[in-house]
Amino acid sequence: MSGTDFKNKPLIAEGPAVILCEPQLGQNIGMVARAMANFGLAELRLVAPRDGWPNEHATKAASGALHVVENASVHATLEEAVADLSFVMATTARPRDIVKPVRGPEEAAGDLRRRFLAGEKTGILYGRERWGLNNDEIILADEIVTFPVNPAFASLNIAQAVLLMSYEWMKTADSNPAFDAFGSGERVIADRKHLVGLMEHVEQALDDAGYFFPAERRDRMAQTVRNIFVHMKLQEQEIQTLRGVVAALEGRRRKQQN
Amino acid sequence: MSGTDFKNKPLIAEGPAVILCEPQLGQNIGMVARAMANFGLAELRLVAPRDGWPNEHATKAASGALHVVENASVHATLEEAVADLSFVMATTARPRDIVKPVRGPEEAAGDLRRRFLAGEKTGILYGRERWGLNNDEIILADEIVTFPVNPAFASLNIAQAVLLMSYEWMKTADSNPAFDAFGSGERVIADRKHLVGLMEHVEQALDDAGYFFPAERRDRMAQTVRNIFVHMKLQEQEIQTLRGVVAALEGRRRKQQN
Repeated sequence: MSGTDFKNKPLIAEGPAVILCEPQLGQNIGMVARAMANFGLAELRLVAPRDGWPNEHATKAASGALHVVENASVHATLEEAVADLSFVMATTARPRDIVKPVRGPEEAAGDLRRRFLAGEKTGILYGRERWGLNNDEIILADEIVTFPVNPAFASLNIAQAVLLMSYEWMKTADSNPAFDAFGSGERVIADRKHLVGLMEHVEQALDDAGYFFPAERRDRMAQTVRNIFVHMKLQEQEIQTLRGVVAALEGRRRKQQN
Repeated sequence: MSGTDFKNKPLIAEGPAVILCEPQLGQNIGMVARAMANFGLAELRLVAPRDGWPNEHATKAASGALHVVENASVHATLEEAVADLSFVMATTARPRDIVKPVRGPEEAAGDLRRRFLAGEKTGILYGRERWGLNNDEIILADEIVTFPVNPAFASLNIAQAVLLMSYEWMKTADSNPAFDAFGSGERVIADRKHLVGLMEHVEQALDDAGYFFPAERRDRMAQTVRNIFVHMKLQEQEIQTLRGVVAALEGRRRKQQN
């Protein structure tokens, strides 16, 4: 999906830190930054990135999420990266023999939002591209987040996992600013008198056109047509348009022009 | 996040079709296939892919989601790609001057699941990487889906958009009691090809009647009329009836002119 970024809109940049444990490819780090920015997260922490930091591949793949990439912090160990956090969730797809509460992304995001509103500093931990997190690392987390994936095709890449959690985070916000731009989108259905006007117009035109044949079926045929128009749940402007359509089809416009 | 695929697990492969309108990069198509497979979707439809099909970059980027890539269908036009569907959602990030219901992904996925359980064939439409969908394409959809993105950083790539919708689709699989509302009394919406047939019939008739005036407003006027018909959620029998109505009105006008 393409979409222009909206200029002069408030930049949302708050919420849990995203912690990548020994990320390997700069491109993946950049895609993580972009996914975070899409859904209002901004604090990226890197534990011992393989190719060092800064990384031009990351900058390029971030597609403009520079406020995330340029402010990323680098840490030698996971312990250091989570030192100031009071609550950490670890994402993993694999069943493990570690006893921790396991949450879905939606439930996890709701919990992170509650903690955020209470002033807690929290983080979401993601493992290496190749083999995720080891048990020692998961032990450092309070809870496990896992995704409801297709059992036969369960592998999510790191940017996808960050995208899903960031998206669920954004969904827990009170209002979704993206929807304001559309207006309500609600259809205002026309008063019934306009609908009746349209139906009478159509019936008159069909009478003139000899549509109702044989005569004894007229009522039934007219009911069928009326019922279609009632189902349409038309707005007033749409009714005006359709009356114009009917008028054109029955030749009034042409007659008027002569 | 890394995770091994689980062998001997049931492969989930059902649900709405994913329709990509004129996708440009094979790599993106492959990443879309992977995202679909992660969350149990399997039916991929490509409208006029820029670099042809099959595409080795797509196969590579699919990371093993070959059951999606190898069964993808290719269509010359969007109309053809949606011909057998009764309900289509279009994803877009941009506010538009088209009156359509706008849904969030969660609400949209719930609706798609209800339709799936009722036996309807549905689809989710995604635009080109660069500039999304044009108005004529959006008009063909019943509803718009948009994502609750950060207003200042709103651009999602196509694979991300597919991932989010597929994920929400999968999330709806658990719940079910809410879905019992769909019973046998449900309206069975006609396949899209019948609707397109009606719209083309009406437009031809309006062209003949000189409705589209002035000429430079033709596209906008035709879109307005099409959008009304899409809103109607017509059943096949209703479409036949309306075609009879249009034919009758046309016939009368022709007779007058003679």
